[in-house]
Amino acid sequence: MKLQLGQTDIFFPVPAALIVGSFENKVDVATIAWVGMVSSTPPTIGISFDKSRYSLSLIRQSGYFTVNIPSADYYKETDYCGIVSGRNTDKASVAGFSYYHGTRTKTPIIKECPFNLECKVTKEIELGSYIMLLGEIVETYIDEDKTIVQNGRAKIDIEKVNPLVYCATVREYWKLDKKVGTAFNAGKDIVQNELGERNGQ
Amino acid sequence: MKLQLGQTDIFFPVPAALIVGSFENKVDVATIAWVGMVSSTPPTIGISFDKSRYSLSLIRQSGYFTVNIPSADYYKETDYCGIVSGRNTDKASVAGFSYYHGTRTKTPIIKECPFNLECKVTKEIELGSYIMLLGEIVETYIDEDKTIVQNGRAKIDIEKVNPLVYCATVREYWKLDKKVGTAFNAGKDIVQNELGERNGQ
Repeated sequence: MKLQLGQTDIFFPVPAALIVGSFENKVDVATIAWVGMVSSTPPTIGISFDKSRYSLSLIRQSGYFTVNIPSADYYKETDYCGIVSGRNTDKASVAGFSYYHGTRTKTPIIKECPFNLECKVTKEIELGSYIMLLGEIVETYIDEDKTIVQNGRAKIDIEKVNPLVYCATVREYWKLDKKVGTAFNAGKDIVQNELGERNGQ
Repeated sequence: MKLQLGQTDIFFPVPAALIVGSFENKVDVATIAWVGMVSSTPPTIGISFDKSRYSLSLIRQSGYFTVNIPSADYYKETDYCGIVSGRNTDKASVAGFSYYHGTRTKTPIIKECPFNLECKVTKEIELGSYIMLLGEIVETYIDEDKTIVQNGRAKIDIEKVNPLVYCATVREYWKLDKKVGTAFNAGKDIVQNELGERNGQ
Protein backbone atom coordinates (compact mmCIF):
# COMPACT_ATOMS: atom_id res chain seq x y z
CA MET A 1 0.00 0.00 0.00
CA LYS A 2 1.19 3.49 -0.87
CA LEU A 3 0.95 6.35 1.62
CA GLN A 4 0.42 9.90 0.35
CA LEU A 5 2.69 12.48 1.96
CA GLY A 6 1.31 15.50 0.06
CA GLN A 7 3.33 18.18 -1.73
CA THR A 8 6.87 17.67 -0.40
CA ASP A 9 10.46 18.34 -1.44
CA ILE A 10 11.68 14.92 -0.29
CA PHE A 11 14.21 13.57 -2.79
CA PHE A 12 16.99 11.00 -2.67
CA PRO A 13 19.64 9.81 -3.28
CA VAL A 14 21.41 13.09 -4.11
CA PRO A 15 24.86 14.58 -3.58
CA ALA A 16 25.58 16.97 -0.72
CA ALA A 17 27.74 19.23 -2.87
CA LEU A 18 30.06 21.92 -1.59
CA ILE A 19 29.70 24.95 -3.88
CA VAL A 20 32.46 27.55 -3.86
CA GLY A 21 31.88 31.11 -5.02
CA SER A 22 34.45 33.91 -5.02
CA PHE A 23 34.73 37.53 -6.08
CA GLU A 24 37.82 39.69 -5.68
CA ASN A 25 39.24 38.77 -2.27
CA LYS A 26 36.05 37.17 -0.95
CA VAL A 27 35.44 33.44 -1.07
CA ASP A 28 32.71 31.28 0.44
CA VAL A 29 31.61 27.66 0.45
CA ALA A 30 28.00 26.48 0.78
CA THR A 31 26.49 23.01 0.97
CA ILE A 32 23.55 22.39 -1.32
CA ALA A 33 21.48 19.35 -2.24
CA TRP A 34 19.55 21.02 -5.07
CA VAL A 35 22.22 20.19 -7.66
CA GLY A 36 22.13 18.04 -10.78
CA MET A 37 23.23 17.72 -14.38
CA VAL A 38 20.88 19.36 -16.85
CA SER A 39 22.55 18.79 -20.23
CA SER A 40 25.46 16.94 -21.83
CA THR A 41 25.71 19.28 -24.86
CA PRO A 42 27.70 20.99 -23.51
CA PRO A 43 28.05 19.42 -20.05
CA THR A 44 25.97 21.72 -17.86
CA ILE A 45 25.09 21.50 -14.17
CA GLY A 46 22.28 23.26 -12.31
CA ILE A 47 22.58 24.53 -8.73
CA SER A 48 19.72 26.12 -6.81
CA PHE A 49 20.12 28.46 -3.88
CA ASP A 50 17.79 30.29 -1.59
CA LYS A 51 18.13 33.88 -2.79
CA SER A 52 19.50 35.06 0.53
CA ARG A 53 22.65 32.91 0.49
CA TYR A 54 25.97 34.69 0.58
CA SER A 55 27.83 32.42 -1.85
CA LEU A 56 25.15 33.09 -4.48
CA SER A 57 25.98 36.81 -4.36
CA LEU A 58 29.69 36.06 -4.97
CA ILE A 59 28.92 33.68 -7.87
CA ARG A 60 26.64 36.24 -9.51
CA GLN A 61 29.42 38.84 -9.35
CA SER A 62 32.16 36.61 -10.79
CA GLY A 63 30.14 34.39 -13.14
CA TYR A 64 31.91 31.24 -11.93
CA PHE A 65 31.47 28.51 -9.31
CA THR A 66 33.00 25.16 -8.44
CA VAL A 67 31.20 21.96 -7.39
CA ASN A 68 33.05 19.76 -4.92
CA ILE A 69 31.92 16.27 -3.90
CA PRO A 70 33.02 15.33 -0.37
CA SER A 71 33.80 11.84 0.82
CA ALA A 72 31.50 10.33 3.46
CA ASP A 73 34.26 10.89 6.05
CA TYR A 74 33.57 14.63 5.79
CA TYR A 75 29.87 14.54 6.65
CA LYS A 76 30.30 16.79 9.71
CA GLU A 77 32.29 19.40 7.79
CA THR A 78 29.79 19.26 4.92
CA ASP A 79 26.87 19.72 7.27
CA TYR A 80 28.64 22.61 9.02
CA CYS A 81 29.00 24.44 5.66
CA GLY A 82 25.23 24.13 5.24
CA ILE A 83 24.18 25.51 8.62
CA VAL A 84 26.45 28.56 9.02
CA SER A 85 26.59 31.72 6.85
CA GLY A 86 29.90 32.77 5.32
CA ARG A 87 29.18 36.48 5.63
CA ASN A 88 31.19 36.76 8.84
CA THR A 89 32.93 33.38 9.06
CA ASP A 90 35.63 31.76 6.95
CA LYS A 91 33.75 28.46 6.88
CA ALA A 92 36.34 26.52 4.90
CA SER A 93 39.02 27.39 7.42
CA VAL A 94 36.85 26.48 10.42
CA ALA A 95 35.85 23.18 8.75
CA GLY A 96 39.45 22.36 7.90
CA PHE A 97 39.01 22.63 4.13
CA SER A 98 41.79 24.12 1.95
CA TYR A 99 41.26 26.00 -1.27
CA TYR A 100 43.20 24.90 -4.34
CA HIS A 101 43.37 26.83 -7.60
CA GLY A 102 42.30 25.04 -10.74
CA THR A 103 43.33 26.07 -14.22
CA ARG A 104 40.18 27.48 -15.75
CA THR A 105 38.65 29.88 -13.23
CA LYS A 106 39.73 32.15 -10.41
CA THR A 107 37.23 30.44 -8.09
CA PRO A 108 39.04 27.74 -6.10
CA ILE A 109 38.13 24.09 -5.68
CA ILE A 110 38.31 22.27 -2.32
CA LYS A 111 41.44 20.16 -2.01
CA GLU A 112 39.96 17.70 0.49
CA CYS A 113 37.06 16.86 -1.87
CA PRO A 114 38.22 14.11 -4.25
CA PHE A 115 36.01 15.18 -7.19
CA ASN A 116 35.68 18.77 -8.41
CA LEU A 117 34.11 20.68 -11.30
CA GLU A 118 34.94 24.21 -12.48
CA CYS A 119 31.85 25.87 -13.97
CA LYS A 120 31.00 29.06 -15.87
CA VAL A 121 27.50 30.48 -15.32
CA THR A 122 25.46 30.39 -18.54
CA LYS A 123 21.92 31.05 -17.31
CA GLU A 124 19.98 32.21 -14.27
CA ILE A 125 16.37 31.21 -13.63
CA GLU A 126 14.20 32.56 -10.79
CA LEU A 127 12.05 29.87 -9.13
CA GLY A 128 10.05 31.16 -6.17
CA SER A 129 12.49 32.14 -3.43
CA TYR A 130 15.24 30.14 -5.18
CA ILE A 131 17.64 31.03 -7.99
CA MET A 132 18.82 28.22 -10.27
CA LEU A 133 22.16 28.89 -11.89
CA LEU A 134 23.18 26.77 -14.84
CA GLY A 135 26.92 26.38 -15.31
CA GLU A 136 28.89 24.90 -18.17
CA ILE A 137 31.45 22.46 -16.77
CA VAL A 138 34.80 23.65 -18.10
CA GLU A 139 37.14 21.33 -16.19
CA THR A 140 36.91 18.14 -14.10
CA TYR A 141 39.36 17.11 -11.35
CA ILE A 142 39.86 13.83 -9.54
CA ASP A 143 42.44 12.94 -6.91
CA GLU A 144 45.01 10.74 -8.63
CA ASP A 145 44.99 8.28 -5.72
CA LYS A 146 41.21 7.79 -6.21
CA THR A 147 41.72 6.37 -9.71
CA ILE A 148 42.78 3.06 -11.18
CA VAL A 149 44.49 2.68 -14.54
CA GLN A 150 42.30 0.72 -16.98
CA ASN A 151 43.29 0.26 -20.65
CA GLY A 152 45.98 2.90 -20.16
CA ARG A 153 43.51 5.51 -18.87
CA ALA A 154 42.74 6.79 -15.39
CA LYS A 155 39.29 5.58 -14.32
CA ILE A 156 37.55 6.96 -11.24
CA ASP A 157 37.43 4.40 -8.42
CA ILE A 158 34.11 5.12 -6.70
CA GLU A 159 34.99 2.94 -3.71
CA LYS A 160 38.10 5.04 -3.05
CA VAL A 161 36.20 8.31 -3.59
CA ASN A 162 33.58 7.08 -1.08
CA PRO A 163 31.14 9.88 -1.98
CA LEU A 164 28.73 11.21 0.63
CA VAL A 165 25.09 10.54 -0.26
CA TYR A 166 22.26 12.72 0.98
CA CYS A 167 18.58 11.98 1.45
CA ALA A 168 17.00 15.42 1.31
CA THR A 169 14.21 16.49 3.66
CA VAL A 170 14.61 13.08 5.35
CA ARG A 171 17.84 14.77 6.56
CA GLU A 172 20.11 11.73 6.47
CA TYR A 173 23.71 11.35 5.24
CA TRP A 174 24.64 7.90 3.96
CA LYS A 175 27.67 6.13 2.57
CA LEU A 176 27.83 3.67 -0.32
CA ASP A 177 28.12 -0.08 0.10
CA LYS A 178 29.03 -1.80 -3.15
CA LYS A 179 28.64 -1.69 -6.91
CA VAL A 180 25.64 -3.74 -8.01
CA GLY A 181 25.91 -3.42 -11.79
CA THR A 182 27.22 -1.70 -14.90
CA ALA A 183 25.01 0.79 -16.73
CA PHE A 184 24.13 0.33 -20.41
CA ASN A 185 24.92 -3.33 -19.80
CA ALA A 186 22.95 -4.75 -16.85
CA GLY A 187 19.68 -4.43 -18.79
CA LYS A 188 20.92 -6.42 -21.79
CA ASP A 189 19.81 -9.70 -20.16
CA ILE A 190 16.22 -8.46 -20.31
CA VAL A 191 16.66 -7.40 -23.96
CA GLN A 192 17.99 -10.86 -24.82
CA ASN A 193 15.18 -12.65 -22.95
CA GLU A 194 12.59 -10.53 -24.75
CA LEU A 195 14.16 -11.26 -28.16
CA GLY A 196 14.27 -14.97 -27.31
CA GLU A 197 10.58 -14.97 -26.36
CA ARG A 198 9.58 -13.10 -29.54
CA ASN A 199 11.57 -15.50 -31.73
CA GLY A 200 10.14 -18.51 -29.90
CA GLN A 201 6.54 -17.41 -30.58
CA MET B 1 47.68 15.32 -6.70
CA LYS B 2 44.65 16.19 -8.81
CA LEU B 3 44.25 14.84 -12.35
CA GLN B 4 42.42 16.95 -14.94
CA LEU B 5 39.89 15.00 -17.01
CA GLY B 6 38.78 17.93 -19.21
CA GLN B 7 35.20 18.97 -19.95
CA THR B 8 33.14 15.95 -18.86
CA ASP B 9 29.62 15.14 -17.74
CA ILE B 10 30.80 12.83 -14.94
CA PHE B 11 28.62 13.35 -11.87
CA PHE B 12 27.77 11.28 -8.81
CA PRO B 13 26.08 10.20 -6.64
CA VAL B 14 22.73 10.70 -8.40
CA PRO B 15 19.43 8.82 -8.67
CA ALA B 16 18.64 6.58 -11.62
CA ALA B 17 15.06 7.77 -11.84
CA LEU B 18 12.29 6.10 -13.81
CA ILE B 19 10.25 8.84 -15.50
CA VAL B 20 6.76 7.98 -16.70
CA GLY B 21 5.00 10.01 -19.40
CA SER B 22 1.56 9.31 -20.82
CA PHE B 23 -0.88 10.82 -23.28
CA GLU B 24 -4.27 9.38 -24.18
CA ASN B 25 -3.74 5.60 -24.39
CA LYS B 26 0.06 5.77 -24.72
CA VAL B 27 2.39 5.39 -21.76
CA ASP B 28 6.17 5.07 -21.57
CA VAL B 29 8.88 4.85 -18.94
CA ALA B 30 12.44 6.14 -19.36
CA THR B 31 15.45 6.00 -17.07
CA ILE B 32 17.29 9.28 -16.59
CA ALA B 33 20.14 10.44 -14.39
CA TRP B 34 19.83 14.14 -15.23
CA VAL B 35 17.25 14.79 -12.52
CA GLY B 36 17.33 16.96 -9.43
CA MET B 37 15.37 19.33 -7.25
CA VAL B 38 15.52 22.96 -8.36
CA SER B 39 13.31 24.80 -5.87
CA SER B 40 11.42 24.25 -2.64
CA THR B 41 8.97 27.17 -3.20
CA PRO B 42 6.97 25.38 -4.51
CA PRO B 43 8.72 21.98 -4.56
CA THR B 44 9.96 21.70 -8.14
CA ILE B 45 12.04 19.03 -9.84
CA GLY B 46 14.03 19.28 -13.07
CA ILE B 47 14.38 16.41 -15.55
CA SER B 48 16.50 16.61 -18.70
CA PHE B 49 16.01 14.45 -21.78
CA ASP B 50 17.71 14.12 -25.09
CA LYS B 51 15.19 15.74 -27.46
CA SER B 52 14.68 12.51 -29.39
CA ARG B 53 13.28 10.50 -26.49
CA TYR B 54 9.79 9.11 -26.83
CA SER B 55 8.65 9.69 -23.25
CA LEU B 56 9.49 13.39 -23.63
CA SER B 57 6.98 13.68 -26.48
CA LEU B 58 4.24 12.14 -24.30
CA ILE B 59 5.04 14.43 -21.35
CA ARG B 60 4.96 17.52 -23.57
CA GLN B 61 1.51 16.54 -24.83
CA SER B 62 -0.02 15.85 -21.40
CA GLY B 63 1.89 18.36 -19.27
CA TYR B 64 2.50 15.78 -16.52
CA PHE B 65 5.14 13.23 -15.51
CA THR B 66 5.95 11.00 -12.57
CA VAL B 67 9.35 10.36 -10.97
CA ASN B 68 9.87 6.88 -9.55
CA ILE B 69 12.89 5.86 -7.47
CA PRO B 70 13.73 2.15 -7.81
CA SER B 71 15.32 0.02 -5.13
CA ALA B 72 18.82 -1.34 -5.82
CA ASP B 73 17.26 -4.79 -6.40
CA TYR B 74 15.80 -3.41 -9.67
CA TYR B 75 19.08 -2.25 -11.26
CA LYS B 76 18.66 -4.55 -14.29
CA GLU B 77 15.09 -3.42 -14.96
CA THR B 78 16.13 0.22 -14.48
CA ASP B 79 19.03 -0.16 -16.90
CA TYR B 80 16.76 -1.87 -19.42
CA CYS B 81 14.37 1.13 -19.41
CA GLY B 82 17.37 3.33 -20.29
CA ILE B 83 18.66 1.34 -23.25
CA VAL B 84 15.46 0.52 -25.18
CA SER B 85 13.00 2.92 -26.83
CA GLY B 86 9.34 2.75 -25.89
CA ARG B 87 8.10 3.64 -29.38
CA ASN B 88 7.50 -0.01 -30.28
CA THR B 89 7.94 -1.79 -26.93
CA ASP B 90 5.90 -1.75 -23.73
CA LYS B 91 9.04 -1.44 -21.62
CA ALA B 92 7.26 -1.52 -18.25
CA SER B 93 5.60 -4.82 -19.12
CA VAL B 94 8.83 -6.40 -20.39
CA ALA B 95 10.69 -5.19 -17.29
CA GLY B 96 7.97 -6.49 -14.97
CA PHE B 97 6.87 -3.06 -13.72
CA SER B 98 3.18 -2.34 -13.08
CA TYR B 99 1.52 1.04 -13.44
CA TYR B 100 -0.52 2.36 -10.54
CA HIS B 101 -2.77 5.40 -10.72
CA GLY B 102 -2.11 8.19 -8.24
CA THR B 103 -4.67 10.78 -7.26
CA ARG B 104 -3.43 13.98 -8.87
CA THR B 105 -2.55 13.17 -12.49
CA LYS B 106 -3.59 10.74 -15.21
CA THR B 107 0.05 9.70 -15.65
CA PRO B 108 0.70 6.55 -13.61
CA ILE B 109 3.42 5.87 -11.07
CA ILE B 110 5.37 2.60 -10.91
CA LYS B 111 4.06 0.30 -8.19
CA GLU B 112 7.38 -1.57 -7.73
CA CYS B 113 9.26 1.70 -7.03
CA PRO B 114 8.92 2.50 -3.32
CA PHE B 115 9.08 6.32 -3.74
CA ASN B 116 7.10 8.26 -6.33
CA LEU B 117 6.34 11.87 -7.22
CA GLU B 118 3.51 13.20 -9.38
CA CYS B 119 4.57 16.37 -11.21
CA LYS B 120 2.96 19.08 -13.35
CA VAL B 121 5.18 20.69 -15.99
CA THR B 122 5.71 24.39 -15.25
CA LYS B 123 8.60 25.32 -17.55
CA GLU B 124 10.59 24.01 -20.49
CA ILE B 125 14.17 25.09 -21.21
CA GLU B 126 16.19 24.12 -24.30
CA LEU B 127 19.83 23.25 -23.53
CA GLY B 128 21.78 22.07 -26.57
CA SER B 129 20.32 18.75 -27.69
CA TYR B 130 18.54 18.40 -24.32
CA ILE B 131 15.23 19.69 -23.02
CA MET B 132 14.93 20.40 -19.30
CA LEU B 133 11.39 20.19 -18.00
CA LEU B 134 10.63 21.70 -14.61
CA GLY B 135 7.74 20.10 -12.77
CA GLU B 136 5.93 21.17 -9.64
CA ILE B 137 5.64 18.17 -7.30
CA VAL B 138 1.93 17.84 -6.56
CA GLU B 139 1.92 14.55 -4.61
CA THR B 140 4.46 12.26 -2.93
CA TYR B 141 4.01 8.50 -2.39
CA ILE B 142 5.92 6.03 -0.25
CA ASP B 143 5.24 2.33 0.25
CA GLU B 144 3.74 2.00 3.71
CA ASP B 145 6.03 -0.96 4.53
CA LYS B 146 9.07 1.28 3.84
CA THR B 147 8.17 3.62 6.69
CA ILE B 148 8.50 3.60 10.43
CA VAL B 149 6.19 5.44 12.78
CA GLN B 150 8.04 8.16 14.70
CA ASN B 151 6.21 10.60 17.01
CA GLY B 152 2.93 9.41 15.53
CA ARG B 153 4.01 10.18 11.93
CA ALA B 154 5.18 7.92 9.10
CA LYS B 155 8.89 8.52 8.46
CA ILE B 156 10.62 7.13 5.38
CA ASP B 157 13.00 4.29 6.28
CA ILE B 158 15.85 4.70 3.78
CA GLU B 159 17.30 1.29 4.64
CA LYS B 160 14.01 -0.39 3.69
CA VAL B 161 13.67 1.72 0.52
CA ASN B 162 17.23 0.69 -0.42
CA PRO B 163 17.42 3.29 -3.24
CA LEU B 164 19.55 2.61 -6.30
CA VAL B 165 22.46 5.06 -6.63
CA TYR B 166 24.01 5.92 -9.98
CA CYS B 167 27.46 7.25 -10.83
CA ALA B 168 26.91 8.92 -14.20
CA THR B 169 29.40 8.59 -17.07
CA VAL B 170 31.38 6.25 -14.79
CA ARG B 171 28.39 3.97 -15.59
CA GLU B 172 28.12 2.23 -12.23
CA TYR B 173 25.07 1.34 -10.13
CA TRP B 174 25.62 1.19 -6.38
CA LYS B 175 23.64 0.45 -3.25
CA LEU B 176 23.76 2.24 0.09
CA ASP B 177 25.58 0.94 3.13
CA LYS B 178 24.61 2.83 6.26
CA LYS B 179 23.55 6.17 7.64
CA VAL B 180 26.58 8.19 8.79
CA GLY B 181 24.87 11.27 10.22
CA THR B 182 21.89 13.58 10.56
CA ALA B 183 21.73 16.76 8.49
CA PHE B 184 21.38 20.17 10.16
CA ASN B 185 22.81 18.47 13.22
CA ALA B 186 26.12 16.69 12.45
CA GLY B 187 27.88 20.04 11.88
CA LYS B 188 26.84 21.49 15.23
CA ASP B 189 29.92 19.98 16.90
CA ILE B 190 32.08 22.21 14.69
CA VAL B 191 29.95 25.27 15.51
CA GLN B 192 30.32 24.53 19.25
CA ASN B 193 34.09 24.03 18.97
CA GLU B 194 34.44 27.29 17.05
CA LEU B 195 32.38 29.18 19.64
CA GLY B 196 34.48 27.62 22.41
CA GLU B 197 37.71 28.70 20.75
CA ARG B 198 36.45 32.24 20.19
CA ASN B 199 35.30 32.58 23.78
CA GLY B 200 38.58 31.16 25.04
CA GLN B 201 40.65 33.74 23.17
